[in-house]
Amino acid sequence: MSVLRGKVLVAQGGGPTAVINQSMVGAVLESRKFQQVTRVYGALHGVQGIINEDFLDLTEATTHNLEAVAQTPSSALLSTRDKPDEAYCQEIFKVCQAHEVRYFFYIGGNDSADTCRIVNQEADKAGYEMRVIHIPKTIDNDLKVTDHCPGYGSAAKFVCQAFAGVNLDNRAIPGVYIGVVMGRHAGFLTAAASLAKKYPDDGPHLIYLPERPFSKQEFIKDVKEVYEKYGRCIVAISEGVVDAKGKAIAAQFTKGEKDAHGNVQLSGTGALGDLLSMWVKQETKIKRVRADTLGYLQRSFLGCVSEVDQFEAREVGEKAAQYSIWHKLDGSVCIRRIGDYAVEYFLAKLEQVARDSIAMPNKYINKDGNYVTDAFKNYARPLIGDLPIMERIAAPKVKKVLK
Amino acid sequence: MSVLRGKVLVAQGGGPTAVINQSMVGAVLESRKFQQVTRVYGALHGVQGIINEDFLDLTEATTHNLEAVAQTPSSALLSTRDKPDEAYCQEIFKVCQAHEVRYFFYIGGNDSADTCRIVNQEADKAGYEMRVIHIPKTIDNDLKVTDHCPGYGSAAKFVCQAFAGVNLDNRAIPGVYIGVVMGRHAGFLTAAASLAKKYPDDGPHLIYLPERPFSKQEFIKDVKEVYEKYGRCIVAISEGVVDAKGKAIAAQFTKGEKDAHGNVQLSGTGALGDLLSMWVKQETKIKRVRADTLGYLQRSFLGCVSEVDQFEAREVGEKAAQYSIWHKLDGSVCIRRIGDYAVEYFLAKLEQVARDSIAMPNKYINKDGNYVTDAFKNYARPLIGDLPIMERIAAPKVKKVLK
Repeated sequence: MSVLRGKVLVAQGGGPTAVINQSMVGAVLESRKFQQVTRVYGALHGVQGIINEDFLDLTEATTHNLEAVAQTPSSALLSTRDKPDEAYCQEIFKVCQAHEVRYFFYIGGNDSADTCRIVNQEADKAGYEMRVIHIPKTIDNDLKVTDHCPGYGSAAKFVCQAFAGVNLDNRAIPGVYIGVVMGRHAGFLTAAASLAKKYPDDGPHLIYLPERPFSKQEFIKDVKEVYEKYGRCIVAISEGVVDAKGKAIAAQFTKGEKDAHGNVQLSGTGALGDLLSMWVKQETKIKRVRADTLGYLQRSFLGCVSEVDQFEAREVGEKAAQYSIWHKLDGSVCIRRIGDYAVEYFLAKLEQVARDSIAMPNKYINKDGNYVTDAFKNYARPLIGDLPIMERIAAPKVKKVLK
Repeated sequence: MSVLRGKVLVAQGGGPTAVINQSMVGAVLESRKFQQVTRVYGALHGVQGIINEDFLDLTEATTHNLEAVAQTPSSALLSTRDKPDEAYCQEIFKVCQAHEVRYFFYIGGNDSADTCRIVNQEADKAGYEMRVIHIPKTIDNDLKVTDHCPGYGSAAKFVCQAFAGVNLDNRAIPGVYIGVVMGRHAGFLTAAASLAKKYPDDGPHLIYLPERPFSKQEFIKDVKEVYEKYGRCIVAISEGVVDAKGKAIAAQFTKGEKDAHGNVQLSGTGALGDLLSMWVKQETKIKRVRADTLGYLQRSFLGCVSEVDQFEAREVGEKAAQYSIWHKLDGSVCIRRIGDYAVEYFLAKLEQVARDSIAMPNKYINKDGNYVTDAFKNYARPLIGDLPIMERIAAPKVKKVLK
């Protein structure tokens, strides 16, 4: 097989993750090993940077610099929310051709996979040989084909450590605590809060996901039950929960009022948490009710990564370079779970991963739709890894003297 | 000096911190070394547990268990919001006397110091020899006399790591980001966000503290200026900011409406962030505006501690036992900074630390009241310690071909 000589172009799209730079650096360093790779470029701000020809020459970045960048959360090449259509992808292709890019790696979610698919088509149409690989990335864990997505494990670990701490805090000063977790359509990230539970009475006690219709009545009933049992209640809820008609619960705050909660923006606002908090205060006699929205910290917090996630994010980047440069293949790098816990990588066709995303399978959600199953915990635990130590005092009670 | 034979009683009050258990375990393990200490009790839920005689016998906790507890965030002996008055303190004293408690250590803030003061008085009045030591703890860093408070460094580190990550995220997908930080009267915790700034254009770009009146007009002007300069803007703001009349800004959301934002509860609600976010959207043409309220994660997140903070929290606990059992002293354990960076401990009188708290000194706040000074950074940096690695790509720009 003749070699395909030319440049490599890497870009990062969509919401950043804690390990997205591992994938970028994996792809860059692996690409730099090949003689047929003349240069390795990085596009700034994803596809937007491609059409603007905003490239960094990563061949001239030091290995030391790139290794430090790999450990840094959020997209070091910066990102974009642009979702290219066919015309946009034609522009991408033209720029690639002009710069003699023969290998294009795009790190992102299902929209990025779709961009890869269309750019690949454009190159084919023009008879220009260009290999296109989609490198998976999303904290939502909602990509098709792959067992799980790089980026999820670290965000899930953050969610776990947040709920583990909040549980200890809420145990010290009891009340109802509602934690709103990212996830518009898929509940994987919210579900991860379940792994924060160590002792049987630990929270989270209730978990609500976008995969099941959310009912105010059921919610209040659930909270009351837990509160009566434990004297406290911790709720993990996805920002994307919807009612039986599919309407976002967060949207119910606005009844024609023009205020900060006027739009159904889900992240970067405390609206949903405050609404649920208000409902609990109105419908129960519980006084101490608090809501936090975990917000952007979930995907960018400095210093909270899952080791497995970091490792795999690096490898999917390296595999992208190998599949395309050694084997001249196009596709989306996927992870297959082959042991407990072990994985291997394979390449899916771009059209298999592009566009549609997935939700949590039914087997991961309990019958009442207010918690996860053990099957989910078994699925998610190795992706998150061990949590920091947390222990209760084990000491006997003292006999009362006065009472 | 004759020895004072009897029990030790330890309790934890107020809001938990990441290292409050270090202080508790330090006091317990040090106390267990003394022959005159017959038992070491821990009260459950602070002073409330004392009047209810809810004690654990910590003499029968294993060292291994206690060392694991020391690393666990939040009050392992559970906490209380009770602020005892004289009658309440009389009850505390009576229970102490009934259980032959001769040493009482209360870990908490200025209110806890005041409880110590009154209980000590009650013992004196009754002619019952009982040593009372206040062990400092607060994420607000607002205690008198001491250079800084155990608990602050770790919460400040969390805030730094949060803003460092958010800055990277906001750089990748630009916009205005507002992060609301705990702190009702003292801005120390919010000010810590300044240490997240590595490169000159990094956020936070603006820091608003409760020590300076907050003006909507100035805020909008500041945000616009930063946004014009950098194309993005990150704001760190204390939940406790007030207007020129001393009214909480968070309270301005409610104009007779009965909603989740109806009360001036500052923590556990996204109201202030959403209000500021709305203002920026209304008064500027900036489209992407996001607000997060860091919430309870700041004081309880599992797995984010400052090493110095952890070390000092342990030592103030040990010193409490030493001051009282070796030297039969009462007081509040304080930290004096004697080097760069080195500290020593000393004992202040309970009445010096009790009741009033402090705010940030003027020298730590800039002239415009929208940022901190280098003096503050020098003060806070050693308390927080090194942050995890974060690095930008250092690579040359590629020359455009098409444009």
